[in-house]
Amino acid sequence: MSNEKLPSRSENYSEWYTQVVLRAEMADYAPVRGCMVVRPYGWALWENIQQALDSRFKATGHTNAAFPLLIPMSFLEKEKQHVEGFSPELAVVTVGGGSELEEPLVVRPTSETIIGYMYAKWIKSYRDLPVLINQWGNVVRWEMRTRLFLRTLEFYWQEGHTAHATAEEAEEETRRMLEVYYDFAVNEAAVPVIRGRKSEKEKFAGAVRSYTIEAMMGDKKALQSGTSHNLGQNFAKAFDIQYLDENNELQYAWTTSWGLSTRFVGAIIMTHGDDQGLILPPRLAPIQVVVVPIWKKEAEREQVLSAGRELLARLQESGIRAQLDDADNKTPGWKFNYWEMKGVPLRVEIGPRDVAKNAVVLARRDVPGREGKIFGVPMAEAPERIARMLDEIQAALLQRATEFRDANIHDVRSYDELKEVIAAGGWARGWWAGTTEEEVRIKEETGATIRCIPFDQPEGSGTCFYTGRPAQEVALFAKAY
Amino acid sequence: MSNEKLPSRSENYSEWYTQVVLRAEMADYAPVRGCMVVRPYGWALWENIQQALDSRFKATGHTNAAFPLLIPMSFLEKEKQHVEGFSPELAVVTVGGGSELEEPLVVRPTSETIIGYMYAKWIKSYRDLPVLINQWGNVVRWEMRTRLFLRTLEFYWQEGHTAHATAEEAEEETRRMLEVYYDFAVNEAAVPVIRGRKSEKEKFAGAVRSYTIEAMMGDKKALQSGTSHNLGQNFAKAFDIQYLDENNELQYAWTTSWGLSTRFVGAIIMTHGDDQGLILPPRLAPIQVVVVPIWKKEAEREQVLSAGRELLARLQESGIRAQLDDADNKTPGWKFNYWEMKGVPLRVEIGPRDVAKNAVVLARRDVPGREGKIFGVPMAEAPERIARMLDEIQAALLQRATEFRDANIHDVRSYDELKEVIAAGGWARGWWAGTTEEEVRIKEETGATIRCIPFDQPEGSGTCFYTGRPAQEVALFAKAY
Repeated sequence: MSNEKLPSRSENYSEWYTQVVLRAEMADYAPVRGCMVVRPYGWALWENIQQALDSRFKATGHTNAAFPLLIPMSFLEKEKQHVEGFSPELAVVTVGGGSELEEPLVVRPTSETIIGYMYAKWIKSYRDLPVLINQWGNVVRWEMRTRLFLRTLEFYWQEGHTAHATAEEAEEETRRMLEVYYDFAVNEAAVPVIRGRKSEKEKFAGAVRSYTIEAMMGDKKALQSGTSHNLGQNFAKAFDIQYLDENNELQYAWTTSWGLSTRFVGAIIMTHGDDQGLILPPRLAPIQVVVVPIWKKEAEREQVLSAGRELLARLQESGIRAQLDDADNKTPGWKFNYWEMKGVPLRVEIGPRDVAKNAVVLARRDVPGREGKIFGVPMAEAPERIARMLDEIQAALLQRATEFRDANIHDVRSYDELKEVIAAGGWARGWWAGTTEEEVRIKEETGATIRCIPFDQPEGSGTCFYTGRPAQEVALFAKAY
Repeated sequence: MSNEKLPSRSENYSEWYTQVVLRAEMADYAPVRGCMVVRPYGWALWENIQQALDSRFKATGHTNAAFPLLIPMSFLEKEKQHVEGFSPELAVVTVGGGSELEEPLVVRPTSETIIGYMYAKWIKSYRDLPVLINQWGNVVRWEMRTRLFLRTLEFYWQEGHTAHATAEEAEEETRRMLEVYYDFAVNEAAVPVIRGRKSEKEKFAGAVRSYTIEAMMGDKKALQSGTSHNLGQNFAKAFDIQYLDENNELQYAWTTSWGLSTRFVGAIIMTHGDDQGLILPPRLAPIQVVVVPIWKKEAEREQVLSAGRELLARLQESGIRAQLDDADNKTPGWKFNYWEMKGVPLRVEIGPRDVAKNAVVLARRDVPGREGKIFGVPMAEAPERIARMLDEIQAALLQRATEFRDANIHDVRSYDELKEVIAAGGWARGWWAGTTEEEVRIKEETGATIRCIPFDQPEGSGTCFYTGRPAQEVALFAKAY
């Protein structure tokens, strides 16, 4: 770990973020421009995210499968908006086995087209519906400006792709999966996302309607953290996904897709981290508790280590992901900084005086300094106290992030007010009845986009802050990653 | 499911295999030549394989990470044998984001080179060693002749890559991971693989020594089912993976790699399957038990369904992966065939007479017909009997495959004997002291290759069946997939 001081969030948020990712050994730069290596600590967090999502997907009747990485270029061209959305971002294989290919193959930027092709083959009758399949995998988008986890050429995600007999079922599925993302974000990651619909301008290339969960980062910029798309019959018509209904008539299916990616790791880092580094929510943290034995004299060493080992065993028995840092070539101070950088939610300190009292010290990562410490916790009670404290930390992280978010969303009644709010780095919420062209103009002038039209709407109706037209709903504007 | 009869293994093994994969809905052909779609049932089996392996990897101190899909072409060229081994098989990205790339990028055929590059960056001191990282992912090799699961352009696997301070440690690791594969194959998949060393000719491109587990398929051909490579310092020298030892001197690290892929799904299919379709080993089967209620009259329907639901709940409570087939548009006969094709190890039948007796019928998938049935199992005892029977099936599959294997390995003392054994479709074992050139000649003349020099060796030494030279070890020859 570097000994240089971490830049503070207020002095350089972007550099703070990058340094945290690198120093906490979450990820590293790959030799290929824009690609990342997800290091074991970062991947362990992603594995916990995967598990939390996968069990929710399976509980809602979905199964996993694997579709090919390589897609014929012609597939993307079958859905007009889809190819327009993705063509600037494609990585193209033109040579295979030493020969120029007749038709170039695209490294998948997303899999609607190739999955649509397979669904057309598998779906014959209404009895085959719904098809509820998810895929965990990697995709490639040739992004020009990249940042670890937030936007990389290759990223890891899951993409759900479903086919249904009716428009209503497809809409239900689209909303159900957004709720799954919401539940995961709030209850596992302590990231208080806002649910809503994407504007026409911001929706997915080829979708009829896109829904999103949007999170506010520590610098108040928005991060789109998961999306769920109702694709209507667009891909079914492009790929002939047809089925015989109960009256033996041929119908086009209705499809959906939804995805959440390693970008969510960025959401966690930027929602909870502080000037000392990462803070991981206990439910997802690869290491929930680190036990640091403290000794000066050799005689104390075995004492504190053995107390540490005993506690470690008891924590692990009770299902807590704990680790003992018994390295003898680092000082306790160095270890404290190291595990703080890594965002381990709870640290247990055991020194000779603690051993004498048969007690330990607990230190919360989310409450710095002496205030976050509890001294003299009896060893016998430690596992139970630690388990309870992990729950408290989880809840505290969510509360803090929610308060921060709510304090930084401002209602605006005029374009001037919106400009002020955005210039000050906040999110603006206002009645909206504008067109895509008007939305584009706001983006050009302020840098803010409509993050979503939130599900949570005020009562009644109002006047569009931008056009003065009567408006039925409010929209959320913010600068975004 | 197709109503046509499945080709028998004796009449056309290759067609039998393909039809089983397609009809059991394990995989399907993708629109891109040589690529496959792994369907939910096949992927669920792969997920169980992953879990069984991943827990073993973690128990031996390994962690997971993710390295990039795209590798600069120049990386492969740094290790001479490696590039020779892989260059005919590469898929090359030449266009990204609409522009021709300055340096083409290879879609990884394996990741030694890019991981070597990262290890060089991360490893500074002996204190950083060993590095024990595994990656679950996809790779692409431009194969000319492909077959579902066995050899596809894109396949799924894990690749472990480790770095060590000494040659001894690297060799230990290489052997340890082969033992992990062996333990998994035998105890989870009931595939009685043979452990051994690859010949010089057959070893991995860039390795010092390669070890393998080899399995005998139902047509007696060999399938290389997992490999573990001691890479010596070859990649460390190519990528400058150097560390300061305890005396502060710069040393090259010693690295290993090891992999097991979706090809193993093929191994399971061809080891256990019969003329009715798949037979899955209970420990890995996505569905271990299927409950089929049988009724003729509407009055019986609710009776048997409710008994079925009750049993299902009790099976699931006791941790058995069970499913109830309550479809009312299929006959029981159709369902029996369907679940036999899918290889579900145990079927429970519940008809009105069983309900009257408060009993069920158990039918083993591995013992066809009446012989594999147990009638009148009291409902109260059913979950326990079923759990025990699953263990019996697991053991029976291993025993049957082991007997089949052992009956088809023949000791040979002359080249003529080897030719006879190979022509008859068996495996030949003989004392061997030949050169790579002599091995090549045997392959040209008989189609057989050295599958491995088995760890299990007879006592003493002998005379090479081919060259007549004194030989220290026996080698296993066979035709292989």
